[in-house]
Amino acid sequence: MSEAIKSKSVDYSSDEYLKRVDEYWRAANYISVGQLYLLNNPLLQEPLKATDVKVHPIGHWGTIAGQNFIYAHLNRAINKYGLNMFYIEGPGHGGQVMVSNSYLDGTYTETYPKITQDKAGMKRLFKQFSFPGGVASHADPKTPGSIHEGGELGYSILHGAGAVLDNPGLIAATVVGDGESETGPLATSWQVNKFLNPITDGTVLPILNLNGFKISNPTVLSRESHEELEDYFKGLGWDPHFVEGTDPAKMHHLMAEELDKVIEEIHAIRQNAKDNNDESRPKWPMIVFRAPKGWTGPKSWDGEPIEGSFRAHQIPIPVDRNHMEHADKLVDWLKSYKPEELFDENGTLKPEIAAIIPEGQARMAANPVTNGGKLTKDLITPNIDDYALDNKDHGKEDGSDMTELGKYIRDLIKLNKDNKNFRGWGPDETLSNKLGAAFEDTKRQWMEPIHEPNDALLAPQGRIIDSMLSEHMDEGMLEAYNLTGRYGFFASYESFLRVVDSMLTQHFKWLRNSHEETPWRADVPSLNVIASSTAFQQDHNGYSHQDPGIISHLAEKKTEYVRAYLPGDANTLIATFDKAIQSKQLINLIIASKHPRPQWFTMDEAKHLVRDGLGVVDWASTDNGEEPDVVFATAGSEPTTESLAAVSILHARFPEMKIRFINVVDLLKLKKDDPRGLSDAEFDAFFTKDKPVIFAYHAYDDLVKTLFFDRHNHNLHVHGYREEGDITTPFDMRVRNELDRFHLVKAALLATPAYAEKGAHVIQEMNDILDKHHDYIRAEGTDIPEVENWKWTPLK
Amino acid sequence: MSEAIKSKSVDYSSDEYLKRVDEYWRAANYISVGQLYLLNNPLLQEPLKATDVKVHPIGHWGTIAGQNFIYAHLNRAINKYGLNMFYIEGPGHGGQVMVSNSYLDGTYTETYPKITQDKAGMKRLFKQFSFPGGVASHADPKTPGSIHEGGELGYSILHGAGAVLDNPGLIAATVVGDGESETGPLATSWQVNKFLNPITDGTVLPILNLNGFKISNPTVLSRESHEELEDYFKGLGWDPHFVEGTDPAKMHHLMAEELDKVIEEIHAIRQNAKDNNDESRPKWPMIVFRAPKGWTGPKSWDGEPIEGSFRAHQIPIPVDRNHMEHADKLVDWLKSYKPEELFDENGTLKPEIAAIIPEGQARMAANPVTNGGKLTKDLITPNIDDYALDNKDHGKEDGSDMTELGKYIRDLIKLNKDNKNFRGWGPDETLSNKLGAAFEDTKRQWMEPIHEPNDALLAPQGRIIDSMLSEHMDEGMLEAYNLTGRYGFFASYESFLRVVDSMLTQHFKWLRNSHEETPWRADVPSLNVIASSTAFQQDHNGYSHQDPGIISHLAEKKTEYVRAYLPGDANTLIATFDKAIQSKQLINLIIASKHPRPQWFTMDEAKHLVRDGLGVVDWASTDNGEEPDVVFATAGSEPTTESLAAVSILHARFPEMKIRFINVVDLLKLKKDDPRGLSDAEFDAFFTKDKPVIFAYHAYDDLVKTLFFDRHNHNLHVHGYREEGDITTPFDMRVRNELDRFHLVKAALLATPAYAEKGAHVIQEMNDILDKHHDYIRAEGTDIPEVENWKWTPLK
Ligand SMILES: Cc1ncc(C[n+]2csc(CCOP(=O)(O)OP(=O)(O)O)c2C)c(N)n1
Ligand SMILES: Cc1ncc(C[n+]2csc(CCOP(=O)(O)OP(=O)(O)O)c2C)c(N)n1
Ligand SMILES: [Mg+2]
Ligand SMILES: [Mg+2]
Repeated sequence: MSEAIKSKSVDYSSDEYLKRVDEYWRAANYISVGQLYLLNNPLLQEPLKATDVKVHPIGHWGTIAGQNFIYAHLNRAINKYGLNMFYIEGPGHGGQVMVSNSYLDGTYTETYPKITQDKAGMKRLFKQFSFPGGVASHADPKTPGSIHEGGELGYSILHGAGAVLDNPGLIAATVVGDGESETGPLATSWQVNKFLNPITDGTVLPILNLNGFKISNPTVLSRESHEELEDYFKGLGWDPHFVEGTDPAKMHHLMAEELDKVIEEIHAIRQNAKDNNDESRPKWPMIVFRAPKGWTGPKSWDGEPIEGSFRAHQIPIPVDRNHMEHADKLVDWLKSYKPEELFDENGTLKPEIAAIIPEGQARMAANPVTNGGKLTKDLITPNIDDYALDNKDHGKEDGSDMTELGKYIRDLIKLNKDNKNFRGWGPDETLSNKLGAAFEDTKRQWMEPIHEPNDALLAPQGRIIDSMLSEHMDEGMLEAYNLTGRYGFFASYESFLRVVDSMLTQHFKWLRNSHEETPWRADVPSLNVIASSTAFQQDHNGYSHQDPGIISHLAEKKTEYVRAYLPGDANTLIATFDKAIQSKQLINLIIASKHPRPQWFTMDEAKHLVRDGLGVVDWASTDNGEEPDVVFATAGSEPTTESLAAVSILHARFPEMKIRFINVVDLLKLKKDDPRGLSDAEFDAFFTKDKPVIFAYHAYDDLVKTLFFDRHNHNLHVHGYREEGDITTPFDMRVRNELDRFHLVKAALLATPAYAEKGAHVIQEMNDILDKHHDYIRAEGTDIPEVENWKWTPLK
Repeated sequence: MSEAIKSKSVDYSSDEYLKRVDEYWRAANYISVGQLYLLNNPLLQEPLKATDVKVHPIGHWGTIAGQNFIYAHLNRAINKYGLNMFYIEGPGHGGQVMVSNSYLDGTYTETYPKITQDKAGMKRLFKQFSFPGGVASHADPKTPGSIHEGGELGYSILHGAGAVLDNPGLIAATVVGDGESETGPLATSWQVNKFLNPITDGTVLPILNLNGFKISNPTVLSRESHEELEDYFKGLGWDPHFVEGTDPAKMHHLMAEELDKVIEEIHAIRQNAKDNNDESRPKWPMIVFRAPKGWTGPKSWDGEPIEGSFRAHQIPIPVDRNHMEHADKLVDWLKSYKPEELFDENGTLKPEIAAIIPEGQARMAANPVTNGGKLTKDLITPNIDDYALDNKDHGKEDGSDMTELGKYIRDLIKLNKDNKNFRGWGPDETLSNKLGAAFEDTKRQWMEPIHEPNDALLAPQGRIIDSMLSEHMDEGMLEAYNLTGRYGFFASYESFLRVVDSMLTQHFKWLRNSHEETPWRADVPSLNVIASSTAFQQDHNGYSHQDPGIISHLAEKKTEYVRAYLPGDANTLIATFDKAIQSKQLINLIIASKHPRPQWFTMDEAKHLVRDGLGVVDWASTDNGEEPDVVFATAGSEPTTESLAAVSILHARFPEMKIRFINVVDLLKLKKDDPRGLSDAEFDAFFTKDKPVIFAYHAYDDLVKTLFFDRHNHNLHVHGYREEGDITTPFDMRVRNELDRFHLVKAALLATPAYAEKGAHVIQEMNDILDKHHDYIRAEGTDIPEVENWKWTPLK
């Protein structure tokens, strides 16, 4: 922004200023179309030849001009009001929007010096778009200023909200596709205004890009009456401003006027909140921007409309290297932006247009929050020894793993209160998941009226966001909180984490691509997901609440960016969380038990298990440094307890049996093709090459089979969740899935040649007690005393 | 309903009638609380002893009384207006609601004769609830009248909508939890009124159960101003009616009055639509029902409010067999319903109350649509030979599999037009997924204004619902369309199917439970999901659009209820779809290619492949009935083409090499513990016990490893999707994942002992062409001619 522009004397609403905005817009449009089609001759200074055009023009047009228009006007508002703003492109398939604008404002060249702001650079820019070895058609990590890929639609507002939390002063200008607005996650995310504090958080400014169409259909909102549309957004607590039209000249004035109102409204809300310490929920403004899909592009093709139709969505006119019959139409279209008025001979944007572009970090593509890793402050963590349960007598005390973790989280919140860089999320489940201790030092952030004593633990400021029943909301906000450089976790019922399977995939892809392909992006804090109330921990619910498949869902991917932790008790859970929360650029999945259960490992043991990922548990083994007869391996809370109980039973009956007991916490250490995976030699040292391994596992058997497939030892007997469930007793859940001690004893005997035949009596004993169990629970509704009262007795 | 009540003379709004409604309501509440706590002494005719109470009372209270109230009034409306109505319990965790009401109306006893309508039956009813070996705490398949479990919240309106499609006259009374309304799927599903035709479809009547709380938080909608709430629903196109209060007496009058208005509005809308052939979108009525959570229950506990608070959600007061200190409070609560006024000595509902219960199929729990399998008419299917591509010259012609399938679907629509029992869904992708031919005979159903020529293929009636960008919507409506006995499919981009991972899980659980545990439910048509625009078929999109993991997601479950089909060409796809669409009680996942590709199998071959699940492809094999040197196995379109190309290359260079070529269509036939799985002997016959198997596979390698783990042959080399992707050429996607012909040739040579060393030159040749490929696509943006122009040459 030039000195003249910076000075207060500028009239930002003058025809002259808006003429510059229009020129800027045309430049952005020109460059956006060029990226779709051109390989050479970027300024069309020569007649267009076949070799100037791509063989496969690929990408999207319909969303572009509207978004470029919005972008240009946001720049104007940044200049006028000195805003701290960044851009979220909901329909990220208009990848050119953020590329073109960051190219014009210089950020792109600063990031990729080969893409110079001249003809040669423009040519490279055009070629690389949607091209093998080049850049994606989406606003992906390679795009400066992006924290939102926009491939899987629906998360723009949530990403905006996550970014502005604890960033007062920041505005997330969030363009929402009208098609995108039909997705479930987006539809519910308008409610996010119930959670943003006008004093301590920034502002999401939603801009609905109501271009009327999606891929091949009109959009629902675009066909509602004006009245319905207005009611809808008012009903959601927003103050909608409408900018509607097709004539660019009129639209510039209208947009300038409404955007000014919107910004002034935002300032007034913030000012009032600060001045009067008014933390009631404001009616934040938003913009409904209605201009035709494919605006400024070809009007029609083959007698059918393109502009203002769904047909504008992708490549609107069929011109490519091998189909040059209508190349003139492409040239007409490009020339309609009058590139000669916008760029000099050399392809550089004319200085009078460049003058209205914000400078430095005021440029949206250079806003520091969009490369959040660089802003990340170290988390201050408590000493985990302070939370240690004394488990020297293994299994003597019961405890709830999640309850203990709650205390650690409470202190994490305390320690980082000033830095304001740690938060937790939950879909109305933080208490049910037993993290209650966290509320000793904070509340659930909630901007609606609070009615105590009917309500509890709510306040307009708080480090936990838990008052909306939406896993999408939690996951989406946390993602953006991470991407803008802050730490957090999301604790959910295990089964309903599957609601956000695809979001985890998208975030994983972002983390991977940004790590591998954009060295200029600093690593960001990991996304931590706690799965509690697991398949084996049903209270008031049953079969519908059982799906532990989230582990395999993540493990199929590049596990370099994924951890799956299955801590077996509270100390191990705390040590796990302590490691996960400080890590960067990962998805950490932590499967955590919430019910009171025997506690097994000393904090020292727990630390080793977490550091190494797995370990031989000496006090539960009887192989005394020799070759074992059988290996018990466990991953998870119930699997560990049941396996220990099985070892007890076996040892009492066959004291000579050589059992090795291995606890696995960091499951993917077993994966061979993972960079962190155990070497074959080490794997064999633990699991042997051929001894029977009885692997008691929290989730579906399949994944463990896969992990062993690539190893030598295939003498594997997995006992995991076998999709058997109902409302029943805790122990019966294990019995149904054959993960209980009695089935494990049987499995070990049957798999161990020296015992397969002599074990008959013990096998019969196991069958008998399983029969007793079957009848007892149906009569009494509670587990048999043998199980309820069982305690570990030391082996040695 | 007694004769007196049936006669027109009844005043349904009289105090007398509403007194009966109140009595009925109290009876339902009594029975609902009894189910939570009691084992014995169901009528409290004796003092309550510890042994009368459950050891672990489990279930939910907060949602019950409100829903019972609604249920009672819906019964009244059924009587008054002779309605065809059924009930959907959004917060299905209030399982007692549907159990209690169907017990009172006799349906429960008709379904489960042991649960008699007397003291003995009531005792059994109480005991079985949320009890080992008993019934779930949710409205699961065992519950008469339920087609909606309500475990994973968010799908109630979608299930209502799917059920009323093509059922004019039917009303789905759909209770939506106010917590549930915060989920993404529910939030977007209000828009379903844009898709229901007032002439040809029935009516969804949403009843928002605004009890103010969820598990431990207030709800967002309950804290909005009345104005905002009204705006919200109006903005969504509904006409909201408010019924709000806490005093039962007043509420009965209010509810009766508003419900009458609502029903009359519905009738007026239908009448007008029919009389005037008015297919414009009506403003359907809905009800906002605001009464306290835990209504009529304990007011407080330990000084904290229960009624009207989140604390009412589950078991509100801590009384159980081992904690009888406050048993009097439980007795007070139960007696507050005055059971002696409601049931006779013997535990039978008094006749004057029973008189206001609808009879026969008018009872919501007995509505025939809730056992849809019994209504299912056979689908009329075309002859698949009519769609056969002539592939006698294997691979000579190119074709798009989905385009060919579109023709079959077009005719399926035509043939079943009169029966109105077949529909298709898509999230704005039906054309993009190349099913365009379907529109030769139908349109996309859409009740908003239509602006041709900017729009296309829309109409107020049509067999395809595709105009809303929401996978949740598609999946949810299709589920209910199936459960009410009709056929359909949902075609989606493969990656974004993951958006509904958890919905597929829930539906699978329903299908399984209803098949295994409720013999009285007839099997329903299968849920057919087509995954197209797959990971390997990226046009305008890139890495974010690649996730083939849906196969493993489903395969982890009980595969008795799951099929994963990977047809290799158009004939196979049509044969697959023809089988899937006629099947019952399954989730059929069909991975389908949409791009023009070589076509391989004659329709006869395709039929055999689909019938048997897999087959040796004679014309692509050179083992001539002998032991092979190497087995090529393929599953999917690109894997099949690439493997055939690899066989070509190998055969040209090593004519003596004995190759067996197996194509797998029905992947889970390979699963050992599946009832349909190949025997070990048959598996070995196909794949050998130890010969190298080069398995070219569409999705993540892991699943194939799991399938082979349980078999003898572990000499497996899977080439699947290895999470490598970007915007690139079609062939490069395969190269990056090493699924291309050149990598497959290398893999085969390296794995086959006799060739591992002599293959060096060919391996070098492969490396060279891969290098060429790498450079060529980066320069030209298109694939190398060797690949683009490749054609299969017969081996023999
Ligand atoms: C969850 C999801 N489902 C489907 C798609 C496929 N898809 C890509 S773009 C698009 C239409 C988007 O329309 P809109 O949001 O209005 O964007 P715009 O009109 O600005 O291009 C669809 C359905 C997707 N990207 N994400
Ligand atoms: C998708 C999903 N997330 C979380 C849960 C856990 N859950 C069970 S009940 C409940 C609260 C439901 O509140 P509401 O819909 O208002 O029902 P009601 O008040 O009538 O009980 C929650 C969060 C769930 N069942 N489904
Ligand atoms: Mg749009
Ligand atoms: Mg509620």
